Amino acid sequence: MYHHIKQLMYTVHIGRPDPRFGNMLLEQFGGANGELAAAMQYSIQGLNCDDPDRKDLLMDIGTEELNHLEVVGTLARMHLKPTKDNRDAAAEDPLISIAGGGGVNLYNSMGNAWTADYLKITGELDVDLRSNIAAEARAKIVYERLINFTDDPGTIDALRFLMTREITHMKAFTAALESMGKPMFSIGRIPPTPGLTDQYFNTSTGVGDRGEPDARGPWNQGGDWQMVDAPAFQELESPRAGTRQTGPVEPLV
Amino acid sequence: MYHHIKQLMYTVHIGRPDPRFGNMLLEQFGGANGELAAAMQYSIQGLNCDDPDRKDLLMDIGTEELNHLEVVGTLARMHLKPTKDNRDAAAEDPLISIAGGGGVNLYNSMGNAWTADYLKITGELDVDLRSNIAAEARAKIVYERLINFTDDPGTIDALRFLMTREITHMKAFTAALESMGKPMFSIGRIPPTPGLTDQYFNTSTGVGDRGEPDARGPWNQGGDWQMVDAPAFQELESPRAGTRQTGPVEPLV
Amino acid sequence: MYHHIKQLMYTVHIGRPDPRFGNMLLEQFGGANGELAAAMQYSIQGLNCDDPDRKDLLMDIGTEELNHLEVVGTLARMHLKPTKDNRDAAAEDPLISIAGGGGVNLYNSMGNAWTADYLKITGELDVDLRSNIAAEARAKIVYERLINFTDDPGTIDALRFLMTREITHMKAFTAALESMGKPMFSIGRIPPTPGLTDQYFNTSTGVGDRGEPDARGPWNQGGDWQMVDAPAFQELESPRAGTRQTGPVEPLV
Amino acid sequence: MYHHIKQLMYTVHIGRPDPRFGNMLLEQFGGANGELAAAMQYSIQGLNCDDPDRKDLLMDIGTEELNHLEVVGTLARMHLKPTKDNRDAAAEDPLISIAGGGGVNLYNSMGNAWTADYLKITGELDVDLRSNIAAEARAKIVYERLINFTDDPGTIDALRFLMTREITHMKAFTAALESMGKPMFSIGRIPPTPGLTDQYFNTSTGVGDRGEPDARGPWNQGGDWQMVDAPAFQELESPRAGTRQTGPVEPLV
Amino acid sequence: MYHHIKQLMYTVHIGRPDPRFGNMLLEQFGGANGELAAAMQYSIQGLNCDDPDRKDLLMDIGTEELNHLEVVGTLARMHLKPTKDNRDAAAEDPLISIAGGGGVNLYNSMGNAWTADYLKITGELDVDLRSNIAAEARAKIVYERLINFTDDPGTIDALRFLMTREITHMKAFTAALESMGKPMFSIGRIPPTPGLTDQYFNTSTGVGDRGEPDARGPWNQGGDWQMVDAPAFQELESPRAGTRQTGPVEPLV
Amino acid sequence: MYHHIKQLMYTVHIGRPDPRFGNMLLEQFGGANGELAAAMQYSIQGLNCDDPDRKDLLMDIGTEELNHLEVVGTLARMHLKPTKDNRDAAAEDPLISIAGGGGVNLYNSMGNAWTADYLKITGELDVDLRSNIAAEARAKIVYERLINFTDDPGTIDALRFLMTREITHMKAFTAALESMGKPMFSIGRIPPTPGLTDQYFNTSTGVGDRGEPDARGPWNQGGDWQMVDAPAFQELESPRAGTRQTGPVEPLV
Repeated sequence: MYHHIKQLMYTVHIGRPDPRFGNMLLEQFGGANGELAAAMQYSIQGLNCDDPDRKDLLMDIGTEELNHLEVVGTLARMHLKPTKDNRDAAAEDPLISIAGGGGVNLYNSMGNAWTADYLKITGELDVDLRSNIAAEARAKIVYERLINFTDDPGTIDALRFLMTREITHMKAFTAALESMGKPMFSIGRIPPTPGLTDQYFNTSTGVGDRGEPDARGPWNQGGDWQMVDAPAFQELESPRAGTRQTGPVEPLV
Repeated sequence: MYHHIKQLMYTVHIGRPDPRFGNMLLEQFGGANGELAAAMQYSIQGLNCDDPDRKDLLMDIGTEELNHLEVVGTLARMHLKPTKDNRDAAAEDPLISIAGGGGVNLYNSMGNAWTADYLKITGELDVDLRSNIAAEARAKIVYERLINFTDDPGTIDALRFLMTREITHMKAFTAALESMGKPMFSIGRIPPTPGLTDQYFNTSTGVGDRGEPDARGPWNQGGDWQMVDAPAFQELESPRAGTRQTGPVEPLV
Repeated sequence: MYHHIKQLMYTVHIGRPDPRFGNMLLEQFGGANGELAAAMQYSIQGLNCDDPDRKDLLMDIGTEELNHLEVVGTLARMHLKPTKDNRDAAAEDPLISIAGGGGVNLYNSMGNAWTADYLKITGELDVDLRSNIAAEARAKIVYERLINFTDDPGTIDALRFLMTREITHMKAFTAALESMGKPMFSIGRIPPTPGLTDQYFNTSTGVGDRGEPDARGPWNQGGDWQMVDAPAFQELESPRAGTRQTGPVEPLV
Repeated sequence: MYHHIKQLMYTVHIGRPDPRFGNMLLEQFGGANGELAAAMQYSIQGLNCDDPDRKDLLMDIGTEELNHLEVVGTLARMHLKPTKDNRDAAAEDPLISIAGGGGVNLYNSMGNAWTADYLKITGELDVDLRSNIAAEARAKIVYERLINFTDDPGTIDALRFLMTREITHMKAFTAALESMGKPMFSIGRIPPTPGLTDQYFNTSTGVGDRGEPDARGPWNQGGDWQMVDAPAFQELESPRAGTRQTGPVEPLV
Repeated sequence: MYHHIKQLMYTVHIGRPDPRFGNMLLEQFGGANGELAAAMQYSIQGLNCDDPDRKDLLMDIGTEELNHLEVVGTLARMHLKPTKDNRDAAAEDPLISIAGGGGVNLYNSMGNAWTADYLKITGELDVDLRSNIAAEARAKIVYERLINFTDDPGTIDALRFLMTREITHMKAFTAALESMGKPMFSIGRIPPTPGLTDQYFNTSTGVGDRGEPDARGPWNQGGDWQMVDAPAFQELESPRAGTRQTGPVEPLV
Repeated sequence: MYHHIKQLMYTVHIGRPDPRFGNMLLEQFGGANGELAAAMQYSIQGLNCDDPDRKDLLMDIGTEELNHLEVVGTLARMHLKPTKDNRDAAAEDPLISIAGGGGVNLYNSMGNAWTADYLKITGELDVDLRSNIAAEARAKIVYERLINFTDDPGTIDALRFLMTREITHMKAFTAALESMGKPMFSIGRIPPTPGLTDQYFNTSTGVGDRGEPDARGPWNQGGDWQMVDAPAFQELESPRAGTRQTGPVEPLV
């Protein structure tokens, strides 16, 4: 059960409203990596969760994100208010202006309605925690970009508060994942096919127009990595059961 | 530049077509965690990428996912073919049947058209790699669930191949992230507010209808963690600059 | 600021899980007239609202709808749980099964992702209250239909609770609108053109295949109503300034 | 059966094309509260309607809205035509310019494609009439905002005509609803739970950052209203059957 | 201006309602190739059209498609009516049942809301006519598939009428395109680069798993065709200005 | 199987980045008639195709369109790069700027996420080829409009290359359709009702506000055409079986 207290988690003060910036702020209100997406992703994962301890974590952070939604919405509301009456302001976001009378709604900076397609919820706890870690990293970088586009001190203060909390959540989700004690690349119950997991398929070759190389790095050499060059043109020699048994390799041209 | 070779990356053979299962398979063709989503996410990240080495990695795996798209699409096509003429089969997926004549299209198992809203692309390389690690984990668990819903050996072989490759990619993306040498919770350039990052807001309290606790764990105790209980009802004592300076705490009821 | 208490607003108990019914229940979780739509519509109207008293009303009911979202989500979760492992159950909602592992997500009964396109928010308080009255009426009838499709006593109890609350909200929104003291058909500030408001355009004529009449009723006769028959074929004689001044009426055939 | 007469319901004349305003006008062409939404909502309600008299009303107004769609589309077309060749004009709506060659399409002012998610159709006549009353109120306020953003006399004339007609429709739908003779808060057939309908849940408490109060008004006091303060923290004493029987109230922190 | 006559363009009679078939019929009501898509595509092209003669054609057929929308909607309504009360029927389309009370709405057979993304409108008349010819061909094959899934004589009669009309429209659009007298492959005003238009890029090579060949046909041999094999691996020798001037061909592996 | 070579099919060079134009370019990257739509439409048609020769054609052109996607994406990336740091540039596309860090994503010029709703895939080969011919015509005109909005020589060169290839594809698809040897208006297997195919329904009559006529042309006169004037008001005399047998024609007003 939710209870609402009228004060914001972070009181916002702004100087002169900046409708263009208000429009940008909507990315964190109704955008793909915004606060509603975070609140819904974690809260619904929590609703589905069978692990009582991490369920609490999901509900804690999901609820906090609802509070952030209020903060960022209030901030955007302040910056967008002039779109109600001022035609130049309205042009920064005609949908907010004409359809919303200058009030915020669950759109992103280009007027796309928020959609649950933004959410990543699988019902597999460790997988969901990985999705959440990535989601927090995305939210952090978006707040940073917003901070870089405004000079208003009150706005910056509020965004810095919100930005910092994403790092807090990232730490908490990481701790929760690690405390599950699962091996790093073990997902679900069916094990991957041994050998095949170590094959790196080099499916993009050559040198790019700007000199982009066909690179080697710890993601395809060293350790157990085995390089498979251009699988489209090779008789694959791996021990994969059931792989195509081609005849002579198709000459390219 | 892409070149297409007519053979599949994994030749598929199936026994008796199973339209219900073919419908389920569409999750990995045109679904949120499916192969088109993977192919597009990585390839477009690669197109935008300024790090030449990891750009190659993104293009390698992006291209491989296109090859998986072909494999899973061919498999789904085989299972869905009866929907063209058979009314019972058609009822498993009337959109594929009536609009598509039994052929596959970029829909998920409930007929939703694929949308780029599924993609997570931020243009911040380490953030994108985290999104990719999570994406691979999601794809793995989806393949596992599909395997659990079929008895057809040829179908299982192909799905197991595809499932295994997700783990390979997860390993490669993880190695690429680690090799960037960034501290674990450092995203972008603006540092989070010290102190505030360590505060855990306990915004969900009490005991649930099924005994769900208000839990403690490494995600909110130990290390630098500082617990803030029910921030909605507390005078927050943390050193956060700019936080609301409330008067007497609002009595709850 | 929101605070979450782990108990549900209405504790749910069900008998045997019924995945088909669980799928239907999603209409009230992630559907067009469901609880998330209600929660978001009222809460965001509240965030934008400049009338402090009715702002409180909007936040009260918006928060209650979040609590309903939890209740209906928990109920759907119970009924859908078998979709994780059971293939027949999975066929009732393959998206929940394959992508969600049997957990709920913000979809409707046919797997459409929730979208803010469902919301009606104009930033004009009396208009928003009318939208809310209609929204509550829609939610009530949807709950009634759901009740008619289950025999499970615990499910019926919970749905009856939720259904009743929609009527409560309908009463509250109606009282709030009436207390504003606006004339019934006065919206905004620009008055409608006198005379033209009273003209009823009879643009659908004749008798239908099943005898449907060209009807008269209090919506087009009595009071100030003036009937304009088939305006497409008439020299309109109304005093509307600027209306087309046609020459001889175009003969029909 | 529809028949089309080439003249517009309201002949439009404009002065100098104003592409920015043309873009705004699309809200009423392909937007959420626009004329296609109105035409489709009423006409499809009419198609489904079993009450022959009100079916005629729905078809009359539905058809009139199609005529409004033509008028507003023609007006937008005139204002947007320069987007075909002029780059500054094109920047006001690049989608109309590049994809549409300066012609209108079923988008709103921010390029979102029209979607049937905008429609409210329940197949319960009195409920649908309530939705229609609210829809007309929304359309009225949107026309008013558009009028406030243009100085062009011909444009204003046409918009004033369209705006007035929404009030006409609002009156007609209200008369149709009242003539059904249903009690004001009676929806469908299953009665709400007595007593519970009169409980107002005060789920948002305290005083906001700008002094927003925890308000009382005719929507929660007087008449039969019974106030339930902060239900998340109270032993609910209401006679609701089946409500949670909690033990000692969970202390908050 | 539209005027509505209550009789259908084709009176429909059905035998026993078949909810599963009714669900399939929605493809032609609110689906991608259905009657609303046709009506809107042609009517809006007509609204934008500067060629007075072909504008009339577009409005004629656009209006006829509205009439078809009524016919197919009425037919679907009849077949879907049992979804209101009957749970087995409801399972064929829970969205129609629960949200719509058994009435039709602008969804396709899998519940996707109609979207203007289905439309192809470019504002270039000859291009639009080509889109329309293709649209009619698609609608024809969809009707044919529907006919193959029902045995009900009245339903078949109505569908055959609608199906036939698509061929009529296809003929009319083709005549209108031909009468414009444009060369077959001349689109717009900027001519294609000579020589380059005749190069066929053979970007898919080899032999497929089921023996699919690297084929020749009138689309890549004879006439002016010039074959460019595997451009990804060749020094392109065509006279295209500005094409990449590669050094030695990148060896494949 | 796809293999990726790092060089672009057409190397792009631009002068000064033009973010406004970069935003427009997105129409051909993630827009309705853009390169991803083309690549997916043809490749998936190819995957489903049972005609081995034309399957090769579909895969050839589908793959080439993937290469075009890379070219146009690289071009847009260059023009949009300043949106990362520059606020004026950011205002041209805040979504690319804030959410994407200046990198491209699968959106159109107004930020709509790419959707498979753009695709036209029926699984009926000749129908699909017609859809493809129309799609190429649309893509050509869009490239032409883009060329008209830039002065940058390198950008124009690349766009001219891409534009020309659309004509090449249009020719190839036309040749493939013609080589199937099907009569021009024969779609599928069920023949249209004789006689009815030749009736032109004149459903839009009169003279428009700007003198638009009720026109005659080869699309409704000559050959076998039979004119049916205003079918809504006529006793239809055509030999259509099952047509409505009306009584006396409904007088209009």
